[in-house]
Amino acid sequence: MAKVQARVEAALERFLPQASIAPQRLHEAMRYAALGGGKRVRPLLVFAAGEAAADDPARADPLRLVIAACAVEYIHTYSLVHDDLPCMDDDVLRRGKPTCHVEFDVATALLVGDSLQSLAFQLLAEHKLSDDPAIQVEMAKILAIACGSRGMAGGQAIDLASVGRTLTLPELEHMHIHKTGALIRASVALGARCSNTLAPAQLARLDHYAKCVGLAYQVVDDVLDQESSTATLGKTVGKDAANNKPTYVSALGLARAKALAEELREEAQAALSDLGGGARRLSELADFIVLRKF
Amino acid sequence: MAKVQARVEAALERFLPQASIAPQRLHEAMRYAALGGGKRVRPLLVFAAGEAAADDPARADPLRLVIAACAVEYIHTYSLVHDDLPCMDDDVLRRGKPTCHVEFDVATALLVGDSLQSLAFQLLAEHKLSDDPAIQVEMAKILAIACGSRGMAGGQAIDLASVGRTLTLPELEHMHIHKTGALIRASVALGARCSNTLAPAQLARLDHYAKCVGLAYQVVDDVLDQESSTATLGKTVGKDAANNKPTYVSALGLARAKALAEELREEAQAALSDLGGGARRLSELADFIVLRKF
Repeated sequence: MAKVQARVEAALERFLPQASIAPQRLHEAMRYAALGGGKRVRPLLVFAAGEAAADDPARADPLRLVIAACAVEYIHTYSLVHDDLPCMDDDVLRRGKPTCHVEFDVATALLVGDSLQSLAFQLLAEHKLSDDPAIQVEMAKILAIACGSRGMAGGQAIDLASVGRTLTLPELEHMHIHKTGALIRASVALGARCSNTLAPAQLARLDHYAKCVGLAYQVVDDVLDQESSTATLGKTVGKDAANNKPTYVSALGLARAKALAEELREEAQAALSDLGGGARRLSELADFIVLRKF
Repeated sequence: MAKVQARVEAALERFLPQASIAPQRLHEAMRYAALGGGKRVRPLLVFAAGEAAADDPARADPLRLVIAACAVEYIHTYSLVHDDLPCMDDDVLRRGKPTCHVEFDVATALLVGDSLQSLAFQLLAEHKLSDDPAIQVEMAKILAIACGSRGMAGGQAIDLASVGRTLTLPELEHMHIHKTGALIRASVALGARCSNTLAPAQLARLDHYAKCVGLAYQVVDDVLDQESSTATLGKTVGKDAANNKPTYVSALGLARAKALAEELREEAQAALSDLGGGARRLSELADFIVLRKF
């Protein structure tokens, strides 16, 4: 994992314009937001899915996977920068640093998010990710749908509409399937397509794994938000409760939320059962995501 | 022109999710921002470039061109919605209607822009735009670069940094080449690639045409902003001057700004000279853009 994280970190740096290139302040702010922080969970999922989908895990192509990983991580970073804006969650701390609009200004943070989204699609289009360009077009489609109004941005809209309301568990799940789940599913789908040896039924099982992991990720986030300190988490904790936002902990209580995370972890593992040894990293990641800092 | 505009208008409507689909408020706001207004200049350029690049203008494929036209127009709309936000130009009127964040709210307008950007890339990826998928990948790359920090969003950042400063003419040109020019060039480049019969030298001349038209467009905008009423223009006029923003009129004076627009129009026409009869619509558009409402 550390090796993949280091590789992704270096690539995230390399694909961003230097802060010396005009417009300097925008590029400086993009680098501030995207570099030096974050667990890089989505890139890890891209690489792990690439290994699971390769004939031989050792032959998954890291040059392709790192492009897909950076694209997904730039999208994730853009979503964090926009979510932290005053008109959204109005947050001041992210990854242990002042949020982008606090360190720079709101207008610059808006453009940072906009530009990171474009950069993600640029990466998918200007590097060779598949021997078959039609697969590459499909990858851009997967990412675009995952980002859009029926994916991540739509989840954010559902989240906005839910502040101060009591959500049923299905409603909460619906929100998170969009808000965080869509991009986690896209990470796995893109990683698999970099290798492109799986049959549709196997891709469907990988997607089910990703759905479970995506939901588990959010349940664990809610638990950690309840149990951790701001210093440990690197972002403001207890904020969802303070903002009257529904969470798995508020909907289920702490114990049942933890039990749900564990169920989802087991379901994710089960979805990997017939993918063989190549899926070992995906299996480890499901454990990592659910068992972190409990 | 009216036929192309009607075709594009219908397609823009068709590719947007219905307002009845969740998240409803976001989809309603996307439709509010994107439909029923705008001169659709970029779509007209896409179609005209497609005709110029086809063996026979009558055989340019409207089914492909309309996809590229909608992608470019969604990007343009996203940029308007974000530019109008309180943290940017803080404008209340656009295309004769209240701006998106006034009609809905700032958070929704933010997500409208984000989602329209994703939708543009989704369109380019989920429809067949070329017999060669590699060309289609190239089209996504062209649009992504045009949108990003070294294109349109970068131009917006340069604009922000220039408020209250006196720009030299080259600095003003540098800003507009990014802010409006990049997407106009992409419109022509995408239209041409839908037909894909031009040699690199011809594509370069088309691109030079697009650069001239893009700059002329901005010069004319500045002139109109000075000479028109808010009612005629459908957006707040005189605002750039009030905000101490540099314009071609403030840099050159009205008469020299008009002369510059005319020079650019002539240079655009000259760039079309050896493209033959297929370039007739591009030629008409250069006239239309410069001569509107003077």
